[in-house]
Order: sequence, then structure tokens, then C-alpha cells
Amino acid sequence: MEIRLAKSYGFCFGVKRAIKIAENASNAVTIGPLIHNNAEISRLKDNFNVTTLHDIHEAKGAKKAIIRTHGIPKNDLEQLRADKAEVIDATCPYVTKPQEICEKMSQEGYEIVIFGDANHPEVKGVASYAIHGAVVVQSVEELSHVKLKGQKVSVVSQTTRKINEFLEITRYLESRYKEVRIFNTICNATFENQDAAKDLAKEADVVVIIGGKNSSNTKQLHSICKEYCEDSFLVEDEHDLDEKWFEGKHLCGVTAGASTPDWIIEKIVGKISKIKV
Amino acid sequence: MEIRLAKSYGFCFGVKRAIKIAENASNAVTIGPLIHNNAEISRLKDNFNVTTLHDIHEAKGAKKAIIRTHGIPKNDLEQLRADKAEVIDATCPYVTKPQEICEKMSQEGYEIVIFGDANHPEVKGVASYAIHGAVVVQSVEELSHVKLKGQKVSVVSQTTRKINEFLEITRYLESRYKEVRIFNTICNATFENQDAAKDLAKEADVVVIIGGKNSSNTKQLHSICKEYCEDSFLVEDEHDLDEKWFEGKHLCGVTAGASTPDWIIEKIVGKISKIKV
Repeated sequence: MEIRLAKSYGFCFGVKRAIKIAENASNAVTIGPLIHNNAEISRLKDNFNVTTLHDIHEAKGAKKAIIRTHGIPKNDLEQLRADKAEVIDATCPYVTKPQEICEKMSQEGYEIVIFGDANHPEVKGVASYAIHGAVVVQSVEELSHVKLKGQKVSVVSQTTRKINEFLEITRYLESRYKEVRIFNTICNATFENQDAAKDLAKEADVVVIIGGKNSSNTKQLHSICKEYCEDSFLVEDEHDLDEKWFEGKHLCGVTAGASTPDWIIEKIVGKISKIKV
Repeated sequence: MEIRLAKSYGFCFGVKRAIKIAENASNAVTIGPLIHNNAEISRLKDNFNVTTLHDIHEAKGAKKAIIRTHGIPKNDLEQLRADKAEVIDATCPYVTKPQEICEKMSQEGYEIVIFGDANHPEVKGVASYAIHGAVVVQSVEELSHVKLKGQKVSVVSQTTRKINEFLEITRYLESRYKEVRIFNTICNATFENQDAAKDLAKEADVVVIIGGKNSSNTKQLHSICKEYCEDSFLVEDEHDLDEKWFEGKHLCGVTAGASTPDWIIEKIVGKISKIKV
């Protein structure tokens, strides 16, 4: 049986980069979990003594603090520095970008609109850089209740949002305000994994999706694959594999959610390759 | 019979302003007709000796040159100044705005996209201010054949375009380029006359639309009125009126195209008011 990996799967660029940074920062703490994968967090703890804190309040007295990919609010960053912690910034560059835009644009007199979830850590961080605050909305409906003061608006998006929904927000603003400055800060990594999973599922006889059973992006990959290949199965680790799935199959596709490290994927691919079909 | 004027009709702000400027500039020439109304151009010639030239080449040696509402290309303006003509600028402020934007944004490294007709004098003038040239398109289809070089784009619109078509252009760019800076330079005057004509036609028993029979905006007003009031008639001057139209009518609505001066409207309203119904 041939095993084929999706063209794009697993960690995005920003997460890979953050893991590398953590591996080079022994004995540091991270503010919030670095990724949503307990096995990987345990590995970082066991091998590099990188400890996960729940939030900024636990960071008091820390010598080295890693900022995770989502970034943190500006005040929290200043607090860490005031506390003399060495700050190791693993904020994804695709998140640093909207932070910088919000700061610069608000300094230049633009009102800031962020398309995203006000409760998401990434958005909290980005919004904190708007010097007079930002309007955060998830829909045109929400935006329709907001009255901006001036005629100059700058818009960014949470990195994981869908472009078509972002364009609904910008469309609404463009027909109402004289100058709208739009920064497309959407990162396509999530969608690249989804597109690749779809392409793979169309050709494969059986698909294995690796990731947390509670991870929303993994479940989304599973549902996309199932649409094109009935025999699509979600596994968290190699113990979840069932040899019966592969009987009489010629091509096995493998993909993985955005929080699944390569070493887990390799372990599972190794096990599949030993199954006799 | 009651006569009611539309809430908005005839000259827009920019044209009214240009006529006033011309009335205060005796013996000047205008580069191209100041408005598309021969009676008004004759009046300016007869009363103020304001002469209409076909184009910039005829302006050689002119002492005073009026720039009409559409504006002129930057080179032509410099030519007039080099020829020592006194330049009297009647460019509509709503047109000066996109000219300034194109100059500033191109200086700041943005590529310039103009939504409009490349052959229209207004657009030729606006485009001339983009220091490295501008991409002028009338549709997303046209835009889809254009590949911009960078990731920073600035967009303006010809003033008389429809907002929904402008938003199709901006939407296309926003999904493809990192920063899109949108200036909504559409002027609503044309649409205000149309909306007012519709409201009027809904209530009137008969509607008189005053304007050139070849004027596209006047014909558009006529067709809008006809939709809501069957007895809608287009007239160029008082001789076109027919008393039969008004028999048994109670409310006569009057509107006028964007190039129709008030004195023609007054003459016609005066004549209608004398008709016995």
C-alpha cells in the first residue's frame, strides 16, 4: 500500500518557528500553552524544562518568558519587562504585522477596525496596540451598530479568518467612509491544509487524519476528507489505528491538524507502513 | 395645477461654481466646453465674452484660461503656465481630490488603480497625477488582465461612477494584495437627482424633464420618471411644451438634467404655470 502525505499538513510556519525558539530557551516559561497539543508540551517540559503558565500573573519573578505565536497585549509585555524578565518573542510574524499596523495607523489618526473575536488572545494582543482602542467585530451586523467618529478607517483581520467574510466588513466600510485603508492580514496556512486534504482525499482509498479529537481544525479536516473519501479516520496516536481500515486499499492518504508535531506524524506513518494489506 | 420641483435637479455644486467663476472671468477662454449645454455656452460668450476652445492646442497665446470642472492633465496645466496664461481653476473640488490622492499615493510608493473610463477628460486628468502612471479599468474583467508589481495599491474612482461597481474593483484587489488603500471619490450628485426624480414621479400626474435630448443623464432621468409616471415628457426648451399633456392634471413635477441652467428651468416653469387646465 502506498502512503501519501498531503501537500500541506500539520504545523504552520509560525508554530514551527515557536517550537524551535522554545527548544533554544531551556528553563523558560511560556505565557499560556505554546500549542494545543499536550504531548508536545510534555516533550518541551521533559527535554528543555520549558514550563507552561496559565497567564501573565504567574510570570512574576520568571527569568525567561516566551511569548507564544498569538502574541500578548502591550501592557503585559511592558509588565514582563518591568519585572526584569528576559522576553523571548515567539509571536508569529503574521501576528506582529497587524500589531504594528494598529499602532502606526492609530498614531496617524485612523480609527481601527479589527475583524475577529474580541476574546481570542491574538485579537486582544493586536487591539492593545491601537492607541485609542479598536472596534472589534465578527460580522457586518455587529459593525452596523458602531458609529465611527471620523472619515479615515484602517482595517485588519485576525489571521485565521476567511477572506470572504473579511471582504464583507471592508465593503461595508468603503461605502460609508471616505478613506479606508485595508491590510489583508489573513494567513492562508489553515486553508492550505484544508485544500491539500481535499486534493488528497479525492485520490486516496483511505485517509488518516492525525490530531486532537477536540481540536476544531482537525475535526474540520476530517469532515472535508469524509466528503471525498468515505474511509477517513481521525486518530490521536498510533494506538487508535485499526488494521481493518486498510484491507484491500492501494493508496493511504495522511494529513494532520495544525497542532500536530511531526514526530507524532512520523510515528503513525511508520506504524501504517508496517500493516500488511 | 400645482407645479413641484424635484428636491434635487439640474446643476451640481461643481458646475454651479464653475459658471460663477466664468462669469467673473470676462474675455477668458475655456479648454473644452464648460458644460454640455449650448444655450448656456452662448450666454457666457454673449454676456462675458468667454470663448470655448476645442482643446489645449488652441490655447496658445490666451491671456486667461479657465480649467473646466473635469480638470486637465498636469502637463497641459504646466503648458498653460509656461505660455504665461493666467490660469483660472474651475476644476470641481471633488475632482481635485483624486488628483491630489494620485500624486501623494504614487509618491509614497503605492501603485494607482483608477476605476473609470480612460478616455474621459476627468480620468485623463486624474491619471496624469500618478507619477509612475495609473492603471485605469472599467471592470473586474479588465483588472484581471493586469498584474501589479508590488503589494501596496491605492484606488480612486471617477466621480460619476456607481458605488457597487467600485466595490467590485476594491474587493478584487483586497483579496490579492497586502495593503489596499481605498479613497471613495464618488460624488453622489448624479444619483441625488435620480432619487429625487423617482420620488417626484411617484406623486405627480405629469412630469416635465428639462435637458438636452442627447444628454445621457437627462435621458436617464426621463426613463426613471416614466417608470413611475406614464405622462413624463422630455423638453429642451419652452417650445417643446404641449398644452395637451396637462389637461385634467393636478400635480406637475419638474426636474432637469445636470447640464441645464436655472434660467432655462425658470422660463419653462413660467410657461407651464400659465397653461389653463
